[in-house]
Amino acid sequence: MRIPRSVEWIPDEPPDLIPGHLRILDQTRLPLQTVYIETADPQRVRTAIRNLEVRGAPAIGVAAAMGVAAAAQPACLRSLRDVQSAVRRASASLAGARPTAVNLCWALDRMQAAARTSAPDAQALKRRLAREAVCIRDEDAAMCRAIGAYGATLLRDGDAVLTHCNAGALATAEYGTALAPVYSAAAQGKHIRVFADETRPLLQGSRLTAWELQQAGIDVTVICDNTAAQVMREGRIRAVLVGADRIAANGDTANKIGTYAVALLARAHDIPFYVLAPTSTLDRQIPDGTRIPIEERAPEEVTEGFGKRTAPQGVRVYAPAFDVTPAALITAIVCEHGIARPDYGTSLAALSGA
Amino acid sequence: MRIPRSVEWIPDEPPDLIPGHLRILDQTRLPLQTVYIETADPQRVRTAIRNLEVRGAPAIGVAAAMGVAAAAQPACLRSLRDVQSAVRRASASLAGARPTAVNLCWALDRMQAAARTSAPDAQALKRRLAREAVCIRDEDAAMCRAIGAYGATLLRDGDAVLTHCNAGALATAEYGTALAPVYSAAAQGKHIRVFADETRPLLQGSRLTAWELQQAGIDVTVICDNTAAQVMREGRIRAVLVGADRIAANGDTANKIGTYAVALLARAHDIPFYVLAPTSTLDRQIPDGTRIPIEERAPEEVTEGFGKRTAPQGVRVYAPAFDVTPAALITAIVCEHGIARPDYGTSLAALSGA
Repeated sequence: MRIPRSVEWIPDEPPDLIPGHLRILDQTRLPLQTVYIETADPQRVRTAIRNLEVRGAPAIGVAAAMGVAAAAQPACLRSLRDVQSAVRRASASLAGARPTAVNLCWALDRMQAAARTSAPDAQALKRRLAREAVCIRDEDAAMCRAIGAYGATLLRDGDAVLTHCNAGALATAEYGTALAPVYSAAAQGKHIRVFADETRPLLQGSRLTAWELQQAGIDVTVICDNTAAQVMREGRIRAVLVGADRIAANGDTANKIGTYAVALLARAHDIPFYVLAPTSTLDRQIPDGTRIPIEERAPEEVTEGFGKRTAPQGVRVYAPAFDVTPAALITAIVCEHGIARPDYGTSLAALSGA
Repeated sequence: MRIPRSVEWIPDEPPDLIPGHLRILDQTRLPLQTVYIETADPQRVRTAIRNLEVRGAPAIGVAAAMGVAAAAQPACLRSLRDVQSAVRRASASLAGARPTAVNLCWALDRMQAAARTSAPDAQALKRRLAREAVCIRDEDAAMCRAIGAYGATLLRDGDAVLTHCNAGALATAEYGTALAPVYSAAAQGKHIRVFADETRPLLQGSRLTAWELQQAGIDVTVICDNTAAQVMREGRIRAVLVGADRIAANGDTANKIGTYAVALLARAHDIPFYVLAPTSTLDRQIPDGTRIPIEERAPEEVTEGFGKRTAPQGVRVYAPAFDVTPAALITAIVCEHGIARPDYGTSLAALSGA
């Protein structure tokens, strides 16, 4: 199974990690072109994050960490202080690439902490920074695999699942979150079929989810978002798998616009609806979904999303970026520590160790 | 209120109907360009129907009838027989433009019947044919207005409604079916706001419904199909109004793909779901929706619908053209004779005079 890698650290002389550079899969060129950005320049990494060439909170965190590691490598950085100030400069620059990305800040904090630990010389610090970045990547991959292992217990050989948006390999370091059970089950030799909502307006489903599953040899079928109910009615869907942007303490889950509709449709057809996300997505400060503000996107994403205008000039558009699925519609929330079932107030707290 | 006209008969020297020609609003150029096709050539009318420059079963019927009327006009047609054979030739040609359009055949049959009635001379027959075509248009307009009048009783000043696809003026001779209550209510001075599902894959909602409502000065907001549930949840929708392709004897209704999902979402939010259609849409030969075959469309409509490819090459696509909404999800079916409520087996039979 060949699962695409969103970001990788490529050592120039393996097995030594340094010197090295990043290989970023340019997601803006998908699904038609597979183009990699090879760079050791943190400014180029910043541009890649800003331009959505790399997207998905975990993948952005990994790219930023590796961007910092790359910034520390140049031979002209001879003292510990040289390396540390290069790390500070790169971190400051990368932090502004996507202001709201939590994983981005968290990854940069980790890199800065690593830069502050004592080291015998500049070369050792450079090696430690590269190792830390690779470690952040590997931890995310392990977390995805854990989510996948738990999630795969919910699927049987021959099942078809429906997913919305892209919470897959492209958004993370490896298996993804929503798609992790599919990859895990496939790795166990189960045949799992995926129906991918195209996911308007930005089409992450048809552009990204369909592409990565196709690359991995998973049987995938693209449908328009409005076709999910029909596919469910035909009895073809065994479970719905979606990711999460944020999960409130009571289990209410914010995710890409359209997720709430899929949850209602799944309920109407008695199909289990699973949310798959790392515990870092859980925001225990928020008691329930009513406290999650609904961000609105630019109307042009709906009316000009395909390079030509598809609605009259001046028409009003309502384009929320996400919606909130109430906990009551969620069959289970799968994280890296296990499977939470209602009541989520209790089960999520137990799993996240609160 | 300036409601766009899909097809009109334009007399060269009014008030005399002949000689005259058709003015067809080219719907393939909407919403960006308002271009009319002015022609008296039945071959051009055939092309317009075939290329979806005019679409919607009632509008196609009107265009075909006027195409036959135009074919009968040339001065070189001097005898009754000349005119009758021109009508036959034009009818045969137009009948093949859209093989499955019921209104098309029905309109052509009426024109041929008109051509066979006795007339004093060729000029009188030409005039009668033009009158028959205009009459077909006026009858459809009256039917739409009747649907609108009944439907408007279901709406109150200040209401917002949600619609899917385009069952409006562009698909008919005037008020449309699903949109007729909106136009009727607006004509009564009520302020009605419309949320229009963009309606993937062909975007009839954002391209056509939004355009015609905007032209008529109705407050319209375009949403992605996957946003309907969110708008309902926000308490903004008072009723759902949709058209119908075919209604089974028990009230099960086939309509554009996505309609079934909207019906489920409306039910989940306790929002009335109304189907608006002329009784000609009722197919009493079909006992229920399970007998309605689901036509599949070309995958490219989903993956290349905007002039550029938005899914990987070779990916599987499932693109049913329509779905069937079970009668149990339909609050009422509004036709030109009144409002049918469950049980539809009885109420539809009564309204359609069966």
